[in-house]
Amino acid sequence: MNSKIQVGVLGATGMVGQNYLRLLQNHPWFEVVYLAASPNSAGKTYQEAIAGRWHMRENLPAKFAKIVVEDASQVDKALGKCQMVFSAVEMDKHSILAVEAEWAAKGFGVVSNNSAYRYTDDVPVLIPEINPEHLDILAVQQKQRGWKKGFLVVKPNCSIQSFMIPIYALIKAGYKIDKMIVTTLQAVSGAGYPGPASIDLIDNIIPYIGGEEEKSEIEPVKILGSIKDGKIVSNPDIKISAHCNRVPVTDGHTACVSLQFAGRKPEMADILRIWKEFTAEPQERKLPSAPIPAIVYRDENERPQPQKDRDTGNGMAVTVGRLRKCNVFDYRFSGLHHNTVRGAAGGAILTAELLVARGYVK
Amino acid sequence: MNSKIQVGVLGATGMVGQNYLRLLQNHPWFEVVYLAASPNSAGKTYQEAIAGRWHMRENLPAKFAKIVVEDASQVDKALGKCQMVFSAVEMDKHSILAVEAEWAAKGFGVVSNNSAYRYTDDVPVLIPEINPEHLDILAVQQKQRGWKKGFLVVKPNCSIQSFMIPIYALIKAGYKIDKMIVTTLQAVSGAGYPGPASIDLIDNIIPYIGGEEEKSEIEPVKILGSIKDGKIVSNPDIKISAHCNRVPVTDGHTACVSLQFAGRKPEMADILRIWKEFTAEPQERKLPSAPIPAIVYRDENERPQPQKDRDTGNGMAVTVGRLRKCNVFDYRFSGLHHNTVRGAAGGAILTAELLVARGYVK
Amino acid sequence: MNSKIQVGVLGATGMVGQNYLRLLQNHPWFEVVYLAASPNSAGKTYQEAIAGRWHMRENLPAKFAKIVVEDASQVDKALGKCQMVFSAVEMDKHSILAVEAEWAAKGFGVVSNNSAYRYTDDVPVLIPEINPEHLDILAVQQKQRGWKKGFLVVKPNCSIQSFMIPIYALIKAGYKIDKMIVTTLQAVSGAGYPGPASIDLIDNIIPYIGGEEEKSEIEPVKILGSIKDGKIVSNPDIKISAHCNRVPVTDGHTACVSLQFAGRKPEMADILRIWKEFTAEPQERKLPSAPIPAIVYRDENERPQPQKDRDTGNGMAVTVGRLRKCNVFDYRFSGLHHNTVRGAAGGAILTAELLVARGYVK
Amino acid sequence: MNSKIQVGVLGATGMVGQNYLRLLQNHPWFEVVYLAASPNSAGKTYQEAIAGRWHMRENLPAKFAKIVVEDASQVDKALGKCQMVFSAVEMDKHSILAVEAEWAAKGFGVVSNNSAYRYTDDVPVLIPEINPEHLDILAVQQKQRGWKKGFLVVKPNCSIQSFMIPIYALIKAGYKIDKMIVTTLQAVSGAGYPGPASIDLIDNIIPYIGGEEEKSEIEPVKILGSIKDGKIVSNPDIKISAHCNRVPVTDGHTACVSLQFAGRKPEMADILRIWKEFTAEPQERKLPSAPIPAIVYRDENERPQPQKDRDTGNGMAVTVGRLRKCNVFDYRFSGLHHNTVRGAAGGAILTAELLVARGYVK
Repeated sequence: MNSKIQVGVLGATGMVGQNYLRLLQNHPWFEVVYLAASPNSAGKTYQEAIAGRWHMRENLPAKFAKIVVEDASQVDKALGKCQMVFSAVEMDKHSILAVEAEWAAKGFGVVSNNSAYRYTDDVPVLIPEINPEHLDILAVQQKQRGWKKGFLVVKPNCSIQSFMIPIYALIKAGYKIDKMIVTTLQAVSGAGYPGPASIDLIDNIIPYIGGEEEKSEIEPVKILGSIKDGKIVSNPDIKISAHCNRVPVTDGHTACVSLQFAGRKPEMADILRIWKEFTAEPQERKLPSAPIPAIVYRDENERPQPQKDRDTGNGMAVTVGRLRKCNVFDYRFSGLHHNTVRGAAGGAILTAELLVARGYVK
Repeated sequence: MNSKIQVGVLGATGMVGQNYLRLLQNHPWFEVVYLAASPNSAGKTYQEAIAGRWHMRENLPAKFAKIVVEDASQVDKALGKCQMVFSAVEMDKHSILAVEAEWAAKGFGVVSNNSAYRYTDDVPVLIPEINPEHLDILAVQQKQRGWKKGFLVVKPNCSIQSFMIPIYALIKAGYKIDKMIVTTLQAVSGAGYPGPASIDLIDNIIPYIGGEEEKSEIEPVKILGSIKDGKIVSNPDIKISAHCNRVPVTDGHTACVSLQFAGRKPEMADILRIWKEFTAEPQERKLPSAPIPAIVYRDENERPQPQKDRDTGNGMAVTVGRLRKCNVFDYRFSGLHHNTVRGAAGGAILTAELLVARGYVK
Repeated sequence: MNSKIQVGVLGATGMVGQNYLRLLQNHPWFEVVYLAASPNSAGKTYQEAIAGRWHMRENLPAKFAKIVVEDASQVDKALGKCQMVFSAVEMDKHSILAVEAEWAAKGFGVVSNNSAYRYTDDVPVLIPEINPEHLDILAVQQKQRGWKKGFLVVKPNCSIQSFMIPIYALIKAGYKIDKMIVTTLQAVSGAGYPGPASIDLIDNIIPYIGGEEEKSEIEPVKILGSIKDGKIVSNPDIKISAHCNRVPVTDGHTACVSLQFAGRKPEMADILRIWKEFTAEPQERKLPSAPIPAIVYRDENERPQPQKDRDTGNGMAVTVGRLRKCNVFDYRFSGLHHNTVRGAAGGAILTAELLVARGYVK
Repeated sequence: MNSKIQVGVLGATGMVGQNYLRLLQNHPWFEVVYLAASPNSAGKTYQEAIAGRWHMRENLPAKFAKIVVEDASQVDKALGKCQMVFSAVEMDKHSILAVEAEWAAKGFGVVSNNSAYRYTDDVPVLIPEINPEHLDILAVQQKQRGWKKGFLVVKPNCSIQSFMIPIYALIKAGYKIDKMIVTTLQAVSGAGYPGPASIDLIDNIIPYIGGEEEKSEIEPVKILGSIKDGKIVSNPDIKISAHCNRVPVTDGHTACVSLQFAGRKPEMADILRIWKEFTAEPQERKLPSAPIPAIVYRDENERPQPQKDRDTGNGMAVTVGRLRKCNVFDYRFSGLHHNTVRGAAGGAILTAELLVARGYVK
C-alpha cells in the first residue's frame, strides 16, 4: 500500500466520481486517499455524503466509506496527502477553470474529466493510444503558468472514443483521412444522474444532446493535431460532422461512421489487418488499464451491440464491426465503447497511468 | 356503401394486412370486401383465422370479423367482387412475382407492399407526393405484359419516407442534390411480427437490418428517376449511403441526414420556407389520406421524436427538425415518419387514392 | 361558448395541469379561462410560462397559449372570472391546505388532485361511479367551515382505480369483500415530470414508490365508507394490503388482485356478468367523460396490457382480465387503468361533471 | 483436468444449454466433455451447430467450439465418456420422459431443467439449500425403476427461488407458514430465445405467462414436503397463490410476497436475523457454486432491483428487501434472484455439486 501513488478524487460524490472509486478500488498503482466535493458534503464521511445517491451497480467499496470528504476548493488541505487528483467537480465553467488551476499551481497533477480546459492550447486532451506525445506540452504549460510540479491534462468528451481509436489506427498506418460523417447513439449514463427522464426514453429516442455535436467535431481534430510553437494546433485537414442521439441504453455509445481518405486508399483487408494489429504506447508499456487488444473487430453482421460488447477489455476496448464500402465516401463501419469507462473515468485513469509511466508523477 | 370502390387485402392475416384493415375500416372511398391469405387460413372467418395473432392496439373492427378468408393464390374467386387489391402476401420472392402478376393479369389493380417488383423497370415505386407521373408507365406495363385493365404499383421500403419527402421538396424547388449520408434509427414494428426478440432490444440497439441499407440506397434514386424509352430510369446524379439501426421503439423511424447540393445552394431560410410551403398532388387533389401539411418542421432542438411526432397528420406527415449546417456537406437534419402508416399501409392507401383520382381505378 | 361553465386550472404549468388543458380543450360543458401557477410563472403568457416544459404528446392547444398566468395564491384575481377550479398546485402540504381552503372560502368550487385533504373527514374523496352520495357531506363542509358557495372535493390517488371500480361493482351487486392483496405495476407518468431517471428503469423495475402503498390502502376504505354524524367514516370491514412497483411503462397502471369475500360468494359467471352490466351514476346521467361501459373485460389470457388497453373508453374505462380462482383467497384478476386520465385529470373532470349534474356548480 | 468429473450437456444448443457452458467453463469439479442436441445439430462441431444463435453476452468459450455434437437421444454414444448429464433438451413432454429415463437407465446421473418429471413422486425437485434430504428418494427411484447407477433429479421452475429460500429460512427456524400470495415480475430470459417479441414489451407489461402460475404454486409445496412410504409427499399445510407477469427486464425475477404464519409469529427483527444467519448444506459443505451468504437483505427502500442485485453472489444469492407488516397477512417483502443462474443452470449445477458431495456421483 505504501508504495502506491496517493491520489484524490475531486467531485467524488457525482456519477463520474463514483465511477472513479469503483474503478480504482483495487488499482495496482494508485490508492485513493483523498475525496473532495462541494462544501455541502465537506466534513461528512463519504458514506454519509453519498447516502441515497450511490448509483453504481456494485456496492460502495468499504475502504472509502469512512474517508472524510473535504471541500474541493480548499486545496491546501490536500498538501502532503496526495500527488495527483482526478477532477470531476461539478461547477460552472469559470469556477472549474479557477479550481483546477489552483490544484495544479499548488503542485498537484490534475487529470480532469471537465470540458473547461479542453480548448486551451497548452492543455493536452488525451486519448493515450493516440496522442501521448501531446504530454510534451506540459513543460510549456508549467513554464508559462509558473507551475513547478503541478500540471493539467484533460480527457476528451465521451462521444468520440468509439471512432477515434479505429480512425487513428488507420492514420498511424499511413493513411490520411479527409472527411467523416458520424451519427452517435449514446447511452443515458453519459448524461450523469439523473440524466434523461424515463418517460422521455421509453418507446423513444431523442435526436439531440446539448453541446455534444460541437465537442465531437472539435476535440478530435485537436487530439489529431500537433505541437507547434509551444501550442497544440488542431489538425486542419480533417473535417467531422456529428449527429448525436440519445437512446434507451444504460451504458455504451455506438457510432455509425462514414469516412473518406485523402490520397491513397486502403483495401478492406488492409483496414481489418491494421485494426487487428493495432497497438500503441499504453499496450506497449503494459499500463494496468490498457486493453489488449485495444480494438476488437466482430465479424457478425449485427455487432457491435452495447449490451454484448461494452464490457470488452474491461470496458476499455473499442469494438468495431460492419466495415463495408460507403456509397458516398470510401468506407463505413460501426464502433462502440463503454462511455463511463473508456469514455470517462477509465480513460482518465489510463491517462494517469501514462503520466506515471512517462515520469510526470512519481 | 354501394358507391365505394370494393377492394381486397391479400396477406390479410399478417401485420401489414392488419394495418390495412385498421386504416381502411372507415375509408370514404374504399370498402374492404375481400380478404385473402395463405391456404391455412382459407375457409375460416377472418376472426377465426386471426385468433391469437391480432396485434393492433385497437380491437379487430367488427365488420371484418365474419368475412371468410380466401386463398390469395386463387385469383378467380375474387372476380366480380373487387376491382383493386392491396398485396401484403408473405411468400418467397418467386411466388410473389407470380401471384401479383396473376392478379394484375386478371384485371385487378394491385398496390403492393412487397419488394419483389421494386426493381422492375415497368413497375412504378410510388411516393405519391414525389413521383405521381411515374404512373404513366402503367400504359407501357399493360401493353408489354398484355394486361388489359389490371396493373401493378408498389410502395417503397419503409426506411426512406422521412428523408425522401423533405429532400424532394428541395429538388422540386429547383435545387440539385448530389450526395446524402443517412443513418436511420428504425422501430421494431418495421420487422413485422414477432420481429426482434425482446431480450435483444432491452438496454441495446442493433446496428444492422438485413437488406435495409441496399433498399434505402437503391429505391430513392428510382423514385427520383424518370421515364425514358418506356422504362423508369433511376436518377444517376444522386448518391446515398445508409446506415440502418434497429432501436427499442415501437413505431416511428428516425433518419439523421447530411446532404450536399450540386451547384446552387439554398440558404437555411430557403429550406425552411420550402418545407413549410411544400404541397404536392395528393394535397392538391385533397386525397382522403393526404396529410396537410405534408412536412411539419419543429423548432425545438430535441424534436422530432418517435413518441411525440409519429402520429402527426394521422401518421402520414413527415416531421423534420434540427436543420443546421453540416461540417462536411452543406446541411443536416433529422426526419421522422410513422413506419407502419406512411411507410407501409398508409402510403399504399394514399397511392391507391391517387390511382382513383387519376382514373386508373373506377 | 358563453353558455359553458368558466373554469380555472391551478398549477397549470405542472404535468397534471397540462393534462387538464389537453383533456379540457374541447369539453362540452367547461371552458378553461383562468390559469394560475407559482409566482415565477405569474404575469407570463401560458406559452411563455411553459416554454421548454410542455410534456404532452399533443401540441399545446392554441387557445391557451395567450392566457396570462396568474399567481395561484392570489385568489381575488379570479373573482368573477370562473366558478370552479381544478387544483394541481405543487406546494408543501401546509400551503396546499391553506390555498385550497381560501379558494373555497371565496366561493369557488375546488376539485383537487392533491392528497392534502384526502384524510379530512368533511372532504369527499370521489370516484364518481362509486361514491357520488359522499357529495352530501358538502353541506356539512360548507356549514362548519363557513363557506357559502365554495366547496372542496378531491380525487384519490392514481394507484387504485383499476381495482376499485371492479371491486365496487361486486359490492354494489350485494357481495361483501373482506380482504384484498394487491400488487401494482405503475407507469412512470404517475411520478410527474421528470419522474424516475431513465437509467433506473432500463432493464429494471423499482419495487417501491414513496407513500403509495399507504394511500392505496387507506383511500379505498374511505371511498367505500359512509357518512355518519356529519363525517365520512371509512368502511371498517375491508382490509387491503398493497405492494407498489414502478415499471418501465409510460402510461397505464396494472394491478394484480386477490380478493376474499365475507359471507356469500359469487360464481365466476356472476362476476363476469356483474362487470359486464355495471353502470353507475356517471353513465346513467350521461356525463360527457363517463366511459360506457365503465368496465371492459378481456377474455384473452394476456390482457389487460398498458400498451393496448390504457386508452379504452378514452382512457376513462377500467380494463379487467384473467379472472380466476385464487388458491388462497376466493378470486384473483388483473385490472388496468390510464393513470393520468382516469387516475388523475380525467377522474377529476368526471367529478366536476357530476358536481354540475347534481347542481353544485351552476 | 483428469481428476474432474466428466459431464455432458443435453440440449446444448438451446439457451439453457448455452448457460451451462458459460457457467461450467471454469468449474473446479466438472469438465464438460459431451454435448448433445437435436438430430439437426448432430455431427456438427458445436461452433457450427450454434452459428448465429449463440445468445450469451460473453463469447463462446473456445474449449467447446470443436466438440462434435451428438444426438441427445442416442444414449449409447455417451457410454464411457461422462458420468453425469445436465438435461435441457427441448422436446415434447412425452419424449423428454422417455429420453431422460433412458439416460438414467443406462447409468448416468441426470440433472434436468425440464418440467416433465417434476410432478413424479420418486423424482426429487431440488433447491439444495432447502431439501437436500429429498435425495434419499433416489434409492427408491433406482430400485423401483431398476436403475443401477443412474438416477434423475430435477430443478424447479425459475419463478420460485426468490421467495422459497427466504421462506424456507423461516421454516427452518421453527415457524410455520400457512398462506402466501405472490406476484412475480419476471424477466424475458426466462422464456428462452427468442421469447417475447420486442414490440410486446416496449412500453408494456404482459400479465400472463403460460403454465407459470401453476408451477409456482405446486412445486414449492413438493419441495417443502417430505418422504413418506417411498414417495415425496407435498406439504399439505401451505397454500400459495401466484400472479405471474412478464416485464421488460433481461435477467432477474422479482417477487412481491405477502405471507401468513400459522401459530407463533416472529418479530420483524427475528426475520431479519434469521435471514442474515441463514446457512444450509451447500454453504456448510462449501460447494463451489454455493453463495455465501445465501440471502442478502438490503435496507434501502427501493431494493432489490434486477439491474443492481441479480448478480449478487455470482447470480446465486437471493436478495431480499422491504420487509414490513402486511395489512392483511403477517408480513410482506420483495425478493429477487437471477433466473437463468440461480433459477436455471446455476441451480442445477449446485444440485450436481450436492450430488457429488453426498456421494451419488463419483
